Amino acid sequence: MQTEQTEVQDVLAFADKTRSDYEKTLKAFVDLASVSMEPERRPEIDATAEMGAKLLKSMGAAAEVVKTAGYPVVVGEFHRGSQYPTVTVYNHLDVQPALASEWNSPPFDMQIENGVYRGRGTTDDKGPALAVLNAAHYAHNQGLPVNIKFIWELEEEIGSPSFDQFLKDNLGKLSTSSVVVSDTIWVSRERPAIPYGLRGLQAVLIRLKTGVKDVHSGTTGGLARNPIGEMAQLLNSIYDARTGEVKIPGFYDKVKPVDQDELDNFVASGFTVANFKCAHELTHTRTEDARDGARRIWAHPTFEVHGITGGYAGPGVKTIVPYQCEAKVSMRLVPDQDPEATFNLLKEFVEKQGDFQVLKEGSLKPFLGEFRGEFADAAKAAMQAAFGVEPAFTREGGSIGAVVSMQERLDVPITFLGLSLPEHGYHAINENFDWQQARGGMAMFVEYFKRLSTIK
Amino acid sequence: MQTEQTEVQDVLAFADKTRSDYEKTLKAFVDLASVSMEPERRPEIDATAEMGAKLLKSMGAAAEVVKTAGYPVVVGEFHRGSQYPTVTVYNHLDVQPALASEWNSPPFDMQIENGVYRGRGTTDDKGPALAVLNAAHYAHNQGLPVNIKFIWELEEEIGSPSFDQFLKDNLGKLSTSSVVVSDTIWVSRERPAIPYGLRGLQAVLIRLKTGVKDVHSGTTGGLARNPIGEMAQLLNSIYDARTGEVKIPGFYDKVKPVDQDELDNFVASGFTVANFKCAHELTHTRTEDARDGARRIWAHPTFEVHGITGGYAGPGVKTIVPYQCEAKVSMRLVPDQDPEATFNLLKEFVEKQGDFQVLKEGSLKPFLGEFRGEFADAAKAAMQAAFGVEPAFTREGGSIGAVVSMQERLDVPITFLGLSLPEHGYHAINENFDWQQARGGMAMFVEYFKRLSTIK
Repeated sequence: MQTEQTEVQDVLAFADKTRSDYEKTLKAFVDLASVSMEPERRPEIDATAEMGAKLLKSMGAAAEVVKTAGYPVVVGEFHRGSQYPTVTVYNHLDVQPALASEWNSPPFDMQIENGVYRGRGTTDDKGPALAVLNAAHYAHNQGLPVNIKFIWELEEEIGSPSFDQFLKDNLGKLSTSSVVVSDTIWVSRERPAIPYGLRGLQAVLIRLKTGVKDVHSGTTGGLARNPIGEMAQLLNSIYDARTGEVKIPGFYDKVKPVDQDELDNFVASGFTVANFKCAHELTHTRTEDARDGARRIWAHPTFEVHGITGGYAGPGVKTIVPYQCEAKVSMRLVPDQDPEATFNLLKEFVEKQGDFQVLKEGSLKPFLGEFRGEFADAAKAAMQAAFGVEPAFTREGGSIGAVVSMQERLDVPITFLGLSLPEHGYHAINENFDWQQARGGMAMFVEYFKRLSTIK
Repeated sequence: MQTEQTEVQDVLAFADKTRSDYEKTLKAFVDLASVSMEPERRPEIDATAEMGAKLLKSMGAAAEVVKTAGYPVVVGEFHRGSQYPTVTVYNHLDVQPALASEWNSPPFDMQIENGVYRGRGTTDDKGPALAVLNAAHYAHNQGLPVNIKFIWELEEEIGSPSFDQFLKDNLGKLSTSSVVVSDTIWVSRERPAIPYGLRGLQAVLIRLKTGVKDVHSGTTGGLARNPIGEMAQLLNSIYDARTGEVKIPGFYDKVKPVDQDELDNFVASGFTVANFKCAHELTHTRTEDARDGARRIWAHPTFEVHGITGGYAGPGVKTIVPYQCEAKVSMRLVPDQDPEATFNLLKEFVEKQGDFQVLKEGSLKPFLGEFRGEFADAAKAAMQAAFGVEPAFTREGGSIGAVVSMQERLDVPITFLGLSLPEHGYHAINENFDWQQARGGMAMFVEYFKRLSTIK
């Protein structure tokens, strides 16, 4: 442990010495508005990819910009030797949109203030990406017996539409022993978190049509069917919105039970319903219990209604009987639920109840890694060494398409080592990152790479 | 009967002789686009009122344009003597909007083609108004011992916002023995119909709010409440959308039972579900049975969902958990349901189920006249004499605010003698009226006035 602590101190000293380089580079990346949701930002996306490849090369890594049907992917490598293990670092360099008028500082002109970096993409995911890169550069220069590859995606914020094909087309150069994804958020600054699971998703449109135009509720009401009313009835038959319980027979059959150990870990992350409500500005939740709350968002499937269209949507009341209705719904899925099979369960259940149309929209498989075993142990030890606190193993409630693709295409262990904090404003206005997390992150990744070099 | 038939023949002969005057006058009124929904049409509204008063005076009637807080009302009278009964004829001279590009002929340049009059307002309600006027003129010139008053409203298509106050302010000059409203539609051309009931209305907004912004269904779904899902659950507790049955305790308590006679009359009107579906372009209805179908729209209360807002309403699916939801609903009411009392029943029922907000919107009391008795008999005999077919007594499913106001303020029997047919396109594109109905209508009203003159 003495040696380990000395090494952590060495990395931190190196980080402090090169801090202004890190900040200058981060600013260069943040100032390029690589907003993948805005097609007119294609030049910034391309420039970001070029800047990434150039940066890798300037550090002595191999690097190239790989074209796809959509936006490019930057791949790079610090190569040590084919006899050594290889770890692939995944980050993304595209960012969410930002409306400058809503921000306290310009989103695409990074401001540095007392070790806080303000700008779009600072925490999601450019700041973490450059921290891992510095760690890899350091580890490589120290002669660590491990190859470190990079995959920097530029379509993550739009659901990675080209990523699976990119993996398929470039399997040769992407062979690896493991993957580490650095794009997740701790539950609280006090307690680092390592997520090891993601929920899947099946989105669905349900439609009902009973005429060709809205009609007058005076002349027709009572005899005309009401598709919104019938949709409400259907939704109520699908789930109990108060408890969230899904009533489709078989829906929970494939749900893998959650360990008590896992629930202990969830709560140990610092998760509380009060913090959750505050973070998401919710006035009410389905439970106030932290254990049940964490289980609900991380380890339990859902049925959700996103919107109901059809009928009158203006101010006040217009007394029409609508002629059609569309419910926009989705199900978040957990291992071992399969999107296709779950869609079929829903479709059959709905169609039995009447002349509804059930249309499949986007889907993503759930992901479950390990919170035990040598990769989980390496991640845990590295985080503890760098931040001085034992991390909690949690899951994430969302879905990341790129992770599911990497699991299917690369078929190796995938670990999540994120550096973002709840107060960094992921996807929100006034997004920021900070030197404390970047610096600790560099130490954490050096330690992680070191430990991976011993896993055969 | 011989005398009666002779008199009808005389009126028809008079009508035929003055047909070109009727058509010229109708065209003058239709060509004035008195669209009350469009504030910029105020000049046409005012010009229509002036034209109406001038026309009455040209026939020897007293007439004036009475100002209100909104659009004016034309009042007029063929006065015989205060010792005689008085009948007040209600029509309206404002019209629905019309988008010329959707029409086969210009909506505000009336075209005459083989006895069909094409243009906005021809059937609703200028054509019938002028037919009654001609009948009154004729009857008055024959020395019929009855006073005939006129109320021509210019705000009917916007819900008569100033009408109740107009009645209150002008009660002195509006005293009458009965009212006849000529603004309704037969169920089929083959069988004249006399409605004697209108449904009431109570519109309501129901709101639920659980946060301050839409949140991500991945990071929050399962723990965050879903206000749309809960609204669907609430609506399902309020009514069974498949059958239309309202489940609020006490909702049906005040509903006056419908006579078997009434149901017989409903079906005798020519009402069929097939025609109803065709007229309203509905592909499905809650029943295929004519008797039950007519009861549902004319004599039974409803709960109706007009729209649900909140959440995502764009194309496809956006995986958010909405933070609020508003259901726009209303209840159509039948005698003796009271809007206020029914609103209170709903509010109490909803508030028991959670933190919903229940807001009262517009309301109208139901109306029920008589289908038996001397006024109903007079209407029936007049219609049979003019059109050669015994009319059916029906009700209307909609609500007419002006009728409820007249009932409350004038407190006299109100009869509906309409001339419009389903194929005339009430409120629809290519609205039209025809000489056959106008001509028969003149004979019908002369006969009706004659019979009223004998009712003390």
